[in-house]
Amino acid sequence: MPNLKLTIEYDGTDYAGWQTQHAKHRTIQQVIEDTLHTILRQDIKLIGSGRTDAGVHALGQVANFKTVSSLPVERLKKALNALLPDDIVIRSIEEVEPSFHSRFSAKTKAYRYAILNRDHPSALLRTRVHFCPHPLDIARMKKEAFCLLGRHDFKAFQASSKREKNPVKTIKKLAIRREGDVIYFDIEADGFLYNMVRNIVGTLIEAGRGKFEKGYLKKLLLSKDRKLAGPTAPAKGLCLMKVGY
Amino acid sequence: MPNLKLTIEYDGTDYAGWQTQHAKHRTIQQVIEDTLHTILRQDIKLIGSGRTDAGVHALGQVANFKTVSSLPVERLKKALNALLPDDIVIRSIEEVEPSFHSRFSAKTKAYRYAILNRDHPSALLRTRVHFCPHPLDIARMKKEAFCLLGRHDFKAFQASSKREKNPVKTIKKLAIRREGDVIYFDIEADGFLYNMVRNIVGTLIEAGRGKFEKGYLKKLLLSKDRKLAGPTAPAKGLCLMKVGY
Repeated sequence: MPNLKLTIEYDGTDYAGWQTQHAKHRTIQQVIEDTLHTILRQDIKLIGSGRTDAGVHALGQVANFKTVSSLPVERLKKALNALLPDDIVIRSIEEVEPSFHSRFSAKTKAYRYAILNRDHPSALLRTRVHFCPHPLDIARMKKEAFCLLGRHDFKAFQASSKREKNPVKTIKKLAIRREGDVIYFDIEADGFLYNMVRNIVGTLIEAGRGKFEKGYLKKLLLSKDRKLAGPTAPAKGLCLMKVGY
Repeated sequence: MPNLKLTIEYDGTDYAGWQTQHAKHRTIQQVIEDTLHTILRQDIKLIGSGRTDAGVHALGQVANFKTVSSLPVERLKKALNALLPDDIVIRSIEEVEPSFHSRFSAKTKAYRYAILNRDHPSALLRTRVHFCPHPLDIARMKKEAFCLLGRHDFKAFQASSKREKNPVKTIKKLAIRREGDVIYFDIEADGFLYNMVRNIVGTLIEAGRGKFEKGYLKKLLLSKDRKLAGPTAPAKGLCLMKVGY
């Protein structure tokens, strides 16, 4: 039975995230499963690499499913893109080994967070960036962020509502750069706690505004206390760029 | 009476263009005029640098109006951005000399056209780019485009429905470049005929697909015959970048 791996781009604006508990909300997973059902006439259980929240986007979400169908993958991709709403696009489909599991096989994830940093918002980027009109000290943010690189207990950046068994993750990359009016945060890790990227960005914004004394992030990280971190940055600035296997 | 110059960004997706003849359609000009009326309690006649069609975007549209109000421009800008729908943003307001006229004073306009050139569409760029899955020969397009630079009668690229008295324009810049999956056309001229950018791009796409013999654009330009040009490229790939004064 072929095991198919999908790479998916979506605009999360009009969805209640990748997956929700409540059947009444429209989710990306549900819409793709329904479309696969229409094409393959088979109930499909799509396994995503992980959830993304309402409003979060993806350029490279990964999901897989097993099917009895022998439809060639290029034809399945064409049929999906023809039938899916245009805010969800299947970028590629490939057959993978039976043991491949989008979530358990994932080795790394890369997210990008975008902040619009100028005195007025943007009409064209309004659903893609978090608008922050306050001056931000990028050099300061980079210095503060440095302590997060490597293997740490990230409990201080975990959503207070959700607790994972293992809050220890390894951040392999954390790059901050300005391009015109937009500041990009590129963060790659072997895994993320719930809301971890948005909590890190929200805290770094506070640091960039000069709200913390120097070295605050290091103390915060060691404290493992979410209450000492900054607010959670809004969902719409976040995009899942790539899942590595 | 202060003469105020607005620089405006908008997402043209949900509008019937900058200005239309039919009162029933929602236009960008109308929405800004209505909002100015709300703030200034005065009927405002907004003069745009030129029309943009339904679906066309702008990063730097310019418009001006005269007002009896003495509200400081920074406060007016804040009030406008607070009250306008979020797909229209006022980037700046400045007081200009009484003789300034957005349309008549304009010396140059710069447009960007974006084509997504890969085998599948994009969820995140779907309202910003024209999706073209066919292989495009960029070197060929550049060679064909070269003859358009300079001062010419551009009747061959004018919408057949509209005729301007003077079809002679000067193209100062026409750059074509690929960035990942997106091909950008940057065109700057002292003015454009109706649909001229979209007709040039539509014709260059045909050239890039190898549909014309070499040197076709030069012949087309000299023919002044719209029927020999390619189709009009879709509105959503077009963005008015800057109006020069």
